[in-house]
Amino acid sequence: MTPAIDASVFVPPAWQSISEAHQRIAPRIHRTPVLTCASLDKIAGAALYFKCENLQKTGSFKIRGAANAILSLTDQEASRGIITHSSGNHGAAVACAAGWRNIPAWIVMPENCSAIKCRAVESYGGKIIFCEPTVSARAAAAAKIQSETGAMMIHPYDNDLIIAGQATAAKELLEDFPQIEAVLAPVSGGGLLSGSCLGAKGVAPSVRIFGCEPSRADDAYRSMTTGTLQTQEASDTIADGLRASLAPRTFAILRQQLERILLVSEEEIVAATRLIWERMKMIVEPSSAIALAPLLQPSGVASLFGSREGSTTHSSGKAQIGIILSGGNVDLSVFRFE
Amino acid sequence: MTPAIDASVFVPPAWQSISEAHQRIAPRIHRTPVLTCASLDKIAGAALYFKCENLQKTGSFKIRGAANAILSLTDQEASRGIITHSSGNHGAAVACAAGWRNIPAWIVMPENCSAIKCRAVESYGGKIIFCEPTVSARAAAAAKIQSETGAMMIHPYDNDLIIAGQATAAKELLEDFPQIEAVLAPVSGGGLLSGSCLGAKGVAPSVRIFGCEPSRADDAYRSMTTGTLQTQEASDTIADGLRASLAPRTFAILRQQLERILLVSEEEIVAATRLIWERMKMIVEPSSAIALAPLLQPSGVASLFGSREGSTTHSSGKAQIGIILSGGNVDLSVFRFE
Repeated sequence: MTPAIDASVFVPPAWQSISEAHQRIAPRIHRTPVLTCASLDKIAGAALYFKCENLQKTGSFKIRGAANAILSLTDQEASRGIITHSSGNHGAAVACAAGWRNIPAWIVMPENCSAIKCRAVESYGGKIIFCEPTVSARAAAAAKIQSETGAMMIHPYDNDLIIAGQATAAKELLEDFPQIEAVLAPVSGGGLLSGSCLGAKGVAPSVRIFGCEPSRADDAYRSMTTGTLQTQEASDTIADGLRASLAPRTFAILRQQLERILLVSEEEIVAATRLIWERMKMIVEPSSAIALAPLLQPSGVASLFGSREGSTTHSSGKAQIGIILSGGNVDLSVFRFE
Repeated sequence: MTPAIDASVFVPPAWQSISEAHQRIAPRIHRTPVLTCASLDKIAGAALYFKCENLQKTGSFKIRGAANAILSLTDQEASRGIITHSSGNHGAAVACAAGWRNIPAWIVMPENCSAIKCRAVESYGGKIIFCEPTVSARAAAAAKIQSETGAMMIHPYDNDLIIAGQATAAKELLEDFPQIEAVLAPVSGGGLLSGSCLGAKGVAPSVRIFGCEPSRADDAYRSMTTGTLQTQEASDTIADGLRASLAPRTFAILRQQLERILLVSEEEIVAATRLIWERMKMIVEPSSAIALAPLLQPSGVASLFGSREGSTTHSSGKAQIGIILSGGNVDLSVFRFE
């Protein structure tokens, strides 16, 4: 396992690299809408701003990082194609961005991944390599393809260009709504969450960032509380996009900039998903809806501000909270309409 | 049964009454977004503009008409409250708009209506009167309440103020995208469809309007083809908002202004619903998705233009088509997330 990076000396991607990422990818991606919902505001007792990456190209924020990494490659670096591993949205995003450059993309996926995620990768022209659903099998499969093809490996989150790309979602959110005092985002490998720290604080330095993690896959919580990078055993959480564990780079950024991790039960994830579908009429993955869940608890909003400052300082008297809805790729075949 | 109105002499709500309706309701409702979707454009072979009334207050366009009718009442007319009948979205809309005026609203609903639609009516403070699911039982229940309370009856669609209110959705769509050449909307009682004729053609007189109707509840198709107002037997179509039949006013407007009715099978309704959920990440009712369904057929777009002019005249070479997504109130309890 890669040793953790010393967070006290680690230098995260600079603001300039995030600005450059944004300029690089803006012509290719959506500046996603920020939606509000009066009935959810009422339940949470706050003004909520939903950054809708479920409406992003490929159905998730992952295209931001993948686009930044792949569009940054020189022609020579890109010439032999891309390889990555992903059980889901990152794979589709890499296949999509590789398609823009007309280069091949090999995606190593666990053989138990969902059919819809496979179809998405294939629809963008990605070549799927199946492996057993273990970290070692995945590494072996990726190494084999890499040695055969010379393709460039793009890690789904332990990569500065990926993190800088993911940072652009929170950057846009704070640019559009600078009054936001706190941002909640899901955490899995930490690319989105560490990027959200950089992107949001780069626009509004005092904003507080919180990560939302399933109790059933709580490695980030354990890493942050122990100060040591923890691994995650195989998890069956319904938030199937949140089963990975932090990497050295993302952990170092979170130690520097994150407020804390909020743990969410399976029941709370399901309730939040249901509420967003029902009230906002939007399809989000359970892995996205988790970022609303802590605010549905009785003292959810107050707990974000804690004793340090008591509560919101916004003139409306209502806390101004951003929520990053990371994706909307749900396998609808499990639902019947008749 | 009420006799049909002679369409050759019938005078529909004037443009001024639609403009006034719009001014009256605009402070209370959303100007809903018009969304596009590259992958659905590709499937349809056209540029599609989705008017998202599923994101409207109360989850459907019905609040437009209800708001116009109820906000138009004098204090004296309003003083004894409102009564209406509805198996769904109109009831919630009337209850909501009545709440704005602090007047009671009695909603006569069939005893087999869905629990979620009942909860919606109640959440807006409406008083539900259950009746057997027949037209005569409904009329008897409404008459009884009316005689007891003196409440004002607001018919869900055979009412000029309702039609003028529903017209504002298509008016907004054409104001935002005047290049639209054809508009598709669902048809049930015809309030939305006749309003769409008036609202769209008031902005762009040459735009063609098409109604989309389940084959299993095809009274509007039969009425239009025979020229005589037809009734609809109880239907089990999955498009549960489209089981009513045209009324004299709506039929007269459609005879004057509608291009024609397009019939859609149950399988096509389900496929269209699934596609919107999956590709647009938006929850729409099957009764809404029906308006996309005809465009998913191989020659769907071409058939709208037919032999009269051949095809689009838009400079992009792609037909410019508006679709009114009428509502998004789906009972999600039938879905399991685990």
